[in-house]
Amino acid sequence: MNGVQRESPALGPGPGAAPPPLADGGLRVVALGGIGEVGRNMTVFEHAGRLLIVDCGVLFPEDNQPGVDLILPDFRPIEDRLDDIEALVLTHGHEDHIGAVPFLLKQRPDLPVVGSKFTLALLAAKCREHRQNPVLVEVAEGQRSTHGPFELEFFAVNHSIPDALAVAIRTAAGLVLHTGDIKLDQLPLDGRLTDLAGFSRLGDEGVDLFLVDSTNAEVPGFVMPERDIGPVLDGVIGKATHRVIVACFASHVHRVQQVLDVAAAHGRRVAFVGRSMVRNMGVAADLGLLRLPEGLLVDLDLASTLPEDQVLFVSTGSQGEPLSALSRMARGEHRQIRIHPGDTVVLASSLIPGNENAVFNVVNGLVRLGANVVHQGNAKVHVSGHAPAGELLFLYNAVRPSNVMPVHGEWRHLRANAELAVRTGVRRDRVVIAEDGVVVDLVDGIARISGRVEVGHVYVDGLSVGDVGESTLSDRLILGEGGFIAITVAVEATTGRAVAPPTVSGRGFSDDPKALDDVVALVEMELSRTEAEGITDTHRIAQAVRRVVGRWVADTYRRRPMIVPTVLPV
Amino acid sequence: MNGVQRESPALGPGPGAAPPPLADGGLRVVALGGIGEVGRNMTVFEHAGRLLIVDCGVLFPEDNQPGVDLILPDFRPIEDRLDDIEALVLTHGHEDHIGAVPFLLKQRPDLPVVGSKFTLALLAAKCREHRQNPVLVEVAEGQRSTHGPFELEFFAVNHSIPDALAVAIRTAAGLVLHTGDIKLDQLPLDGRLTDLAGFSRLGDEGVDLFLVDSTNAEVPGFVMPERDIGPVLDGVIGKATHRVIVACFASHVHRVQQVLDVAAAHGRRVAFVGRSMVRNMGVAADLGLLRLPEGLLVDLDLASTLPEDQVLFVSTGSQGEPLSALSRMARGEHRQIRIHPGDTVVLASSLIPGNENAVFNVVNGLVRLGANVVHQGNAKVHVSGHAPAGELLFLYNAVRPSNVMPVHGEWRHLRANAELAVRTGVRRDRVVIAEDGVVVDLVDGIARISGRVEVGHVYVDGLSVGDVGESTLSDRLILGEGGFIAITVAVEATTGRAVAPPTVSGRGFSDDPKALDDVVALVEMELSRTEAEGITDTHRIAQAVRRVVGRWVADTYRRRPMIVPTVLPV
Repeated sequence: MNGVQRESPALGPGPGAAPPPLADGGLRVVALGGIGEVGRNMTVFEHAGRLLIVDCGVLFPEDNQPGVDLILPDFRPIEDRLDDIEALVLTHGHEDHIGAVPFLLKQRPDLPVVGSKFTLALLAAKCREHRQNPVLVEVAEGQRSTHGPFELEFFAVNHSIPDALAVAIRTAAGLVLHTGDIKLDQLPLDGRLTDLAGFSRLGDEGVDLFLVDSTNAEVPGFVMPERDIGPVLDGVIGKATHRVIVACFASHVHRVQQVLDVAAAHGRRVAFVGRSMVRNMGVAADLGLLRLPEGLLVDLDLASTLPEDQVLFVSTGSQGEPLSALSRMARGEHRQIRIHPGDTVVLASSLIPGNENAVFNVVNGLVRLGANVVHQGNAKVHVSGHAPAGELLFLYNAVRPSNVMPVHGEWRHLRANAELAVRTGVRRDRVVIAEDGVVVDLVDGIARISGRVEVGHVYVDGLSVGDVGESTLSDRLILGEGGFIAITVAVEATTGRAVAPPTVSGRGFSDDPKALDDVVALVEMELSRTEAEGITDTHRIAQAVRRVVGRWVADTYRRRPMIVPTVLPV
Repeated sequence: MNGVQRESPALGPGPGAAPPPLADGGLRVVALGGIGEVGRNMTVFEHAGRLLIVDCGVLFPEDNQPGVDLILPDFRPIEDRLDDIEALVLTHGHEDHIGAVPFLLKQRPDLPVVGSKFTLALLAAKCREHRQNPVLVEVAEGQRSTHGPFELEFFAVNHSIPDALAVAIRTAAGLVLHTGDIKLDQLPLDGRLTDLAGFSRLGDEGVDLFLVDSTNAEVPGFVMPERDIGPVLDGVIGKATHRVIVACFASHVHRVQQVLDVAAAHGRRVAFVGRSMVRNMGVAADLGLLRLPEGLLVDLDLASTLPEDQVLFVSTGSQGEPLSALSRMARGEHRQIRIHPGDTVVLASSLIPGNENAVFNVVNGLVRLGANVVHQGNAKVHVSGHAPAGELLFLYNAVRPSNVMPVHGEWRHLRANAELAVRTGVRRDRVVIAEDGVVVDLVDGIARISGRVEVGHVYVDGLSVGDVGESTLSDRLILGEGGFIAITVAVEATTGRAVAPPTVSGRGFSDDPKALDDVVALVEMELSRTEAEGITDTHRIAQAVRRVVGRWVADTYRRRPMIVPTVLPV
């Protein structure tokens, strides 16, 4: 992998605080992603010389990572030990838990991937797009499986996707429980409760290390049951007199189920819109996770010809993604679906921080076309998939762990989760906040930070992985803010004399065609100077040009475009 | 003004839907900013051939406007009629209402600017930075002033800045009331209530057109009184054992007053941090709007030497601005203030949509350094300055307008506000949603859209206004996403033969030094082809190079950098 400097061997010492060798019989835990950020979850466990990985997801880029499609966990600490990996366990099928699997499988195609039926079905669909044929090991709640020195036991957990699992890991070093993403809906739509009884049994046995989802640790209280959204949707859709479009996450089978049930109750037929929605709901229906009443589903072209009060569209695009179906509707550019006054659009989804402007642009576009837009800001059409503080307390009191390691979250979430652990009686010095790369060793029942391995951001841009790094991003940020001014000069190689007037052009700098008119004379004057000084080295000439143009643009415009001189010896 | 095409004369016809001449005795209303967006509020009123302007603010750019510092209202529709302007009325001193005044004064330096004492003091400070000496006309609630055919009456309104005014405009065409930014705090800290009684008196007289703040129209209910934040701050600051830093808006005098009072009650001395905070609080104290107990205020250098439990800092940076004092503290880069474990940081402010990632980055940085961070997500340390639905209903019922025009908001806010007007009994066909540039004529007591003038975004970038337009921004977006690949070729002018191998370089494209190694041969092959075809025109050669490199990069990398060929004839 290019673009990420290799400095630290497998789970070995990193710069500054190299971890010592793992004590005999101990268990080592290192997150390669997902702690200190929300996304690209990946945790590596090491015991008796063997490795186990839990989850392998992607992170979506922020504003300061322009042009990046995805961010992967940093595989470097395990690249030299790929053959030591016993298995990859996937807790559920969300992108931030499975999205990076194809990139890991490229390095180790025969790695056994362990997960529930729905999780593996989503993974298989993803791997097909990458032309991969992974080794899948299907498990279910209540089952156990053994992978080298790691004995696993799986527990049902409730989340915003079906068939999610928590995993208990037994080794000679002790008992570890990893929640994955979790909440405690006490009236889940599919009746599949988070197995608090199982967690209590583990607690009786003695949990040495508890890794806990931190996403909602700052939020007080409890999540409303998913099924309580049904009546709200019924109220909104029942009152609608024109078309209804519901946007939600393409993996939220239970949310979609409720929309379908309400549509059926009000005599509306349903069409799925958006590639991932069509694909995932197909998978869910095949596995019996989505109940589709006979004749309810119609194809999009047919749906768009049905009377307005007899149709409902379930669409992607709830995060304002500019290319999504919903964004195209908001701009009046969707091929089959035009928004008309009186239409109802429901955003049955969260608003992921950072997406606000994109989502509100879509909402404003829809409102401008006359749609009535319902979203979590004005109706209870969404509940979170992550346990807030009140539910986390239940978890801590069931598990009664000796050591706690908050996972899945930014620093504010991790700290809030740590405080909850302490309030339930966990010793403060046994709560370990270990961001990505921090090495935690569980030895003799005590978890301690023993060092750090270097982990960075690994960027996917187009077809390649890792060749876009911090230096490229920093250039993109400069170019994106101020554009560039390019100056090309041909000089006699022997004398350094300019053989023609310099060519000056700017992009992303100004709409004014005269904006750079003064630069030619400025550069010519500087070239006379360098020639007079006998400078023939093209790098030195280029530097002189960069300096004089940079100073001019700062004085004249108070801007900082990139200055790109090219000096051609002829 | 460059970069904005001039197509429409003063309040005259624009493309597509030219408004007819204003009927005799009528009143024309056009927003040049602030409707369909949150910011750059500016409304122009025309009557009997004369103009009156209410507010002249700036808008802050979004992600798709990179490198832009500010966005101004589009002055083009009034540029030919500057001498017809009787006055500019400022409702209050926020940037989105006064920030663009210096740019208007550049075109008409003697324009009378009418506003309250505090509003004009903030404007004067701003104009001093622009070396301007505006003509100021101070007014207060209860007063009247006449400007040509416009008779104005001012009313106290309550907002998140002191001394805000609503303005009633009487002409032969009827009575207009413009709320400015408004809320109905019934227990305001300074006892200065929004003058609902005055509005009711206007309602008795008959309000023909009511322009109403829409910002919070989507939010149900009422705003908690500002003074109820005091006890919350007292709880947080009273419990603090180390340093306390409170960040809030630099113009929110009442919020700062409550912080100062709590600091004094707990034996903490106070230092202001950040240029705008120091300046605005100086102005407020001079005008008697901020009470500063003797000896409370200390200078920053002294404050940073005081015992940790005897100091409190009031800082800018509540929106995560990267150069602000608070951001520098979060990165450990502030010269005088280092964050230590146990410090308390309070963000006593809203979270403006689009700023979430920046603010949470600051919060995470502070938490990582050990600070306890209190914000509106975990404590009631902020209330909005804008009337939500419940308060807007009070306004409509007091004013009982015949025509309504929602202002200050995106489409979702405007539509929600319109519905509130209708629910209080305003005829639906008398509620006019008129985004920027839409011409509304009030004639014979009825407000109707009569056409549209062209208004665009006017960008300020560094020292110049208007030369950065949509084409420059579009280039910046391409460069920011993918960087560029520059290819420079010197060719014989007569034959089109390359005289040396092409120079190829990329910026913002890849960290891999070999990423573009194949391009030289690719371009050489294309140059052989163009030469063989007898092509000598440098533009055609450049186009051929752009095409072949663009196709190569799309196939090889699936990316779209800008391709910048330069062909030098020598």
